[in-house]
Amino acid sequence: MTPPIVAVIGGGQLARMMAPAATALGITLRVLVESDQAAAAASSHEAVIGLPTDPDAVARLLAAPHPDVVTWEHEHIPAEVVEACEAAGVPARPGLGALRFAQDKIDMRARMDELGLPNPAWRQVSTASDLEAFLAEHGTAVLKTARGGYDGKGVRVVSSAAQARDWLDAAANGGPRLLVEAKVPFTRELAAQVARRPSGETRTWPVVESIQRDGVCSEVTAPAPGLSAERSAQARAIAERIATELDVTGVLAVELFETDAGLVVNELAMRPHNSGHWTIDGAVTSQFEQHLRAVLDLPLGDTAPLAPWTVMANVLGGTRASLGEALGEVADPGAKIHLYGKGVRPGRKVGHVTVTGADARETYDRAVAAAAIVRDGGAA
Amino acid sequence: MTPPIVAVIGGGQLARMMAPAATALGITLRVLVESDQAAAAASSHEAVIGLPTDPDAVARLLAAPHPDVVTWEHEHIPAEVVEACEAAGVPARPGLGALRFAQDKIDMRARMDELGLPNPAWRQVSTASDLEAFLAEHGTAVLKTARGGYDGKGVRVVSSAAQARDWLDAAANGGPRLLVEAKVPFTRELAAQVARRPSGETRTWPVVESIQRDGVCSEVTAPAPGLSAERSAQARAIAERIATELDVTGVLAVELFETDAGLVVNELAMRPHNSGHWTIDGAVTSQFEQHLRAVLDLPLGDTAPLAPWTVMANVLGGTRASLGEALGEVADPGAKIHLYGKGVRPGRKVGHVTVTGADARETYDRAVAAAAIVRDGGAA
Repeated sequence: MTPPIVAVIGGGQLARMMAPAATALGITLRVLVESDQAAAAASSHEAVIGLPTDPDAVARLLAAPHPDVVTWEHEHIPAEVVEACEAAGVPARPGLGALRFAQDKIDMRARMDELGLPNPAWRQVSTASDLEAFLAEHGTAVLKTARGGYDGKGVRVVSSAAQARDWLDAAANGGPRLLVEAKVPFTRELAAQVARRPSGETRTWPVVESIQRDGVCSEVTAPAPGLSAERSAQARAIAERIATELDVTGVLAVELFETDAGLVVNELAMRPHNSGHWTIDGAVTSQFEQHLRAVLDLPLGDTAPLAPWTVMANVLGGTRASLGEALGEVADPGAKIHLYGKGVRPGRKVGHVTVTGADARETYDRAVAAAAIVRDGGAA
Repeated sequence: MTPPIVAVIGGGQLARMMAPAATALGITLRVLVESDQAAAAASSHEAVIGLPTDPDAVARLLAAPHPDVVTWEHEHIPAEVVEACEAAGVPARPGLGALRFAQDKIDMRARMDELGLPNPAWRQVSTASDLEAFLAEHGTAVLKTARGGYDGKGVRVVSSAAQARDWLDAAANGGPRLLVEAKVPFTRELAAQVARRPSGETRTWPVVESIQRDGVCSEVTAPAPGLSAERSAQARAIAERIATELDVTGVLAVELFETDAGLVVNELAMRPHNSGHWTIDGAVTSQFEQHLRAVLDLPLGDTAPLAPWTVMANVLGGTRASLGEALGEVADPGAKIHLYGKGVRPGRKVGHVTVTGADARETYDRAVAAAAIVRDGGAA
């Protein structure tokens, strides 16, 4: 007789943005947040304060009335948490079987190879000579830690093993394993998002173009301008294939490189993702509603866009200490402002702005201009 | 340095639906709810439990950190509450000067007459002979209590004073004052919504058609099918004029009758209104976001529709004891389901469904079908 309860581990903006969708659907959102100041703390219907590494906190998250499902807003989930969910009889979605491919880039690359999906040249490296051999063949390349990277962290461009000595030493001493990937001569970055429910239904959104600055997503345009119908269908098919073959439940974002020769898989995220924030204001069903639907094994919603073009521009921390005053300064009536309730630090993702429109360039310019005003009044 | 705080009096679905908009904008929503089971209790960022007639509860609502503004989800606000807001230095929007025209139908009719806006024939009645004189001139008419009515309550069709004896007796003994209105030979009911901020800016949404059943709103179609551009402009102008002349701040809904001869003002609501629920999924800016923007004196958002047609169908309490299971039964991927977290009682508004589309009739049929499934599995 009670409404569905979805438990979420992680109290950042991704959990925060699940709350409006949950409220609309009458779903109770219970979130494990690190503090009462977390982005998702006040917006959630029930906030449990604690860390996922704290068994007591996890027990409170799983306590009666028991959640119908547990999901995540990030992939850094200790295996013990998933085991605690299983012990409590609460499904964890996506499960560890899928999640490991979002947690570990070596496992992911190996699995893409098995599936015949487009990888860059890559290899696992344990020693300087492994790395030198790869560099000799491929030139300057991208070294990554298999685990723990995000937003440009855990990624380093190297042209010699000497530049990687600290990471190689760490790996030899129990630190993160390493892989090296050939630099992909991409013309741009795309993302394909799909949702999949346990009973198998999948739905993909239009493929988007993502513009990164300093390794962090800056703007997303939906659909990707000028993308051929063939490439678009290929990208959506790759996302659907990965979701199905890896048994992903919930939302999956596949970051892709577009090259003259075709598409290459870059990274996977098994949760709502920055490349999908445009769906809140630009699609019939947002990635946040869809994630809740998918992990609860409910019918998935329509992913059609609401306008010819939607552009999402991130707000990174700038000169303002508090963003509230920005609400009065953005005069564009079509700028949909999203603030995450986080303390402002330089470069930190603290909000985003979305604009829909009939002209791609104008829509892009409006979104970027409004985001700049939110960031610092447009002065920079 | 803190985000804006909006305090709301009333814990029903209207306050509940302000929460997603507040979360997106980084606004803290503090709501005075009658109990922790109220529709708005869990969704609000801060819930204060108590009644607006309880000065202690109102004091907690106004306590530090003080809200930037206090607003309402219904018009039944004791004057003492507004005075407490004024004493605390917190603006109350809309203020009593405007609110009385939504609280009192006699004051409203008199003001519409002053403004030259289209009223039905009406008069205040204190005695049976007042009423008989009106009925002799106009035939069967509509008797209303000046205050306290909603959703068909406080309204009675009468053809003789004998049918009104209880209300007349009550009025003579300190009960609600009465007015009688000529029955308007309307072809349909429309609603015009407008938002106005204290600094004067107004924005209207497309005029909608509202279908009532048993005095309760059942479906709303936006825009009103077949409405002439002239009538649409007239309805929007009436709403803007009322908002401006009555100094309304926030959202105002003007319910209108359309007759062969033109438009007639029916009722006013100075808050988000059932006739505007379509804007959540069907307009660039929802009435809930706009209300928050307006009462905070922020720039108003774009009111353009997102699709050629949007239809909202209410879910009234039916045969289900709990609506959660309905989420798995609505197969239409474009049906946007909104559940209010309220206990189900027959006829009670417990949710709504919105569908957008390119064809008015198909969109209407889909919304009604999905709402029927939510209500009771579609059996009735």
